[in-house]
Amino acid sequence: MDLWLREAQISDAAMTYKVKETLVRKKTKYQDLAIVDTYALGRMLLLDGIVQTTIKDEYVYHEMITHIPLFTHPNPKKVLVVGGGDGGTIREILKHPSMEKAVLCEIDEDVIIECKKYLPEISCALEDSRCEVFIGDGIKYVHEHKNEFDVIIIDSTDPFGAAEGLFGGSFYKEIFECLTEDGIFVAQTETPFYLPDVVKRVYDDAKAVFPVTKLFMAAIPTYPSGYWSFTIGSKKHDPENAQLPEKIPFETRYYTEKIHRASFALPKFVEDLINIK
Amino acid sequence: MDLWLREAQISDAAMTYKVKETLVRKKTKYQDLAIVDTYALGRMLLLDGIVQTTIKDEYVYHEMITHIPLFTHPNPKKVLVVGGGDGGTIREILKHPSMEKAVLCEIDEDVIIECKKYLPEISCALEDSRCEVFIGDGIKYVHEHKNEFDVIIIDSTDPFGAAEGLFGGSFYKEIFECLTEDGIFVAQTETPFYLPDVVKRVYDDAKAVFPVTKLFMAAIPTYPSGYWSFTIGSKKHDPENAQLPEKIPFETRYYTEKIHRASFALPKFVEDLINIK
Repeated sequence: MDLWLREAQISDAAMTYKVKETLVRKKTKYQDLAIVDTYALGRMLLLDGIVQTTIKDEYVYHEMITHIPLFTHPNPKKVLVVGGGDGGTIREILKHPSMEKAVLCEIDEDVIIECKKYLPEISCALEDSRCEVFIGDGIKYVHEHKNEFDVIIIDSTDPFGAAEGLFGGSFYKEIFECLTEDGIFVAQTETPFYLPDVVKRVYDDAKAVFPVTKLFMAAIPTYPSGYWSFTIGSKKHDPENAQLPEKIPFETRYYTEKIHRASFALPKFVEDLINIK
Repeated sequence: MDLWLREAQISDAAMTYKVKETLVRKKTKYQDLAIVDTYALGRMLLLDGIVQTTIKDEYVYHEMITHIPLFTHPNPKKVLVVGGGDGGTIREILKHPSMEKAVLCEIDEDVIIECKKYLPEISCALEDSRCEVFIGDGIKYVHEHKNEFDVIIIDSTDPFGAAEGLFGGSFYKEIFECLTEDGIFVAQTETPFYLPDVVKRVYDDAKAVFPVTKLFMAAIPTYPSGYWSFTIGSKKHDPENAQLPEKIPFETRYYTEKIHRASFALPKFVEDLINIK
């Protein structure tokens, strides 16, 4: 018997994966969670039928959402991740020698529990003594902490349903207050190929709050189109022209200094979308 | 009734597209040709069940395979395209003001006939007086022409079956001879995420023939992984550090000067694959 999974991503086009085994499937308090083992990409986490991360390509997303802001900041010591219950972003954050404390604020404890069980390669750093896990609403957490984090990373699901409040101007104003005086914020912000309106709206909302706002891109095979945008808002440091370390003090699989600079080169249609020359 | 097309690309994972209408399906002398209209991406050309080009994203591939070598060469007048029967590469070539003659050498005339009929947005330039269409084997054509073309573009299907001879050292030697003294060759060379061995072999084969050999990347949503490599071999001009025009003399949707430079930034795992520092 051949078992195939069809992703719920786009109504008129969908990726399908041949499945070895469904490791867990449960309705959590917030979503439909599944971890399945596939032939093409190894184990993958799905939330509400949408692929969140896979063993095969998780490093691209986790390296890029982390190292672009963390190497832009000259001395990041305290970082907040909103979402990201799989732990991959925390794993990358804790590779930075300057790091003192990484807080993970995840609303759905079941994501953490199941990723610890079935995706240890990704969740491995959640037990690190510098990591503090807080189960709760990211919007509330950010509201209750002022002038505290050097970097805030919004590692969320898509901007529909549960995660909708994590995108948009009013939340970005709260993030601004939660950051230290030279703090940096970054968020995954979908693909300009299929969701140009979301990319534009998020960029404009961030730009209204942060003195320096930029978009950067990464090649993530398992996300729709394979070409993903991140929006970065910074109080002071320019991520595109950041002074990067002479040598990256740990191994990477995607990120390099050259990739850091190049990721800010946008296709013409994306430049036009967000009105930059 | 919902009609869905499943692409034949990778055995354990496959894209699926909801289909409005099949416009043509025929067994040509060389392959199974289909042009279908899809909801997500508009009309698309498939050869042996594999998506070759779509109305939605064809510009990325055609701009990048053309403008990177043509803006690297200081004065390209005569260009050869092997494959590329859809005409998209010819369309981009003929936008360059210096262009005198673009030869299309396509083995399968039916590709040209059907693309002219059903994909006029892509095939439109095939009737241009500067375009010469030659129906025949690209390997034979290249062998019979020496010191003739400023740029040769290998716009082929995947390196299996019919197109296999278009990849590899012995053909690249023939291409070298077919180019003028400062000529440049470029080929589409698959994705390093799923076919790292192909990328490495092609790069090494080209490097053994050309004084300057580089890999560049582009985000092409409808190709597997969405992240595609091109190998460029040059007798003299370095494509990465080329002197580009101050202003691009026509409209583009993906290519920019900044994208040109950035496309040569390779992820760490690709650098490692082809042994560059």
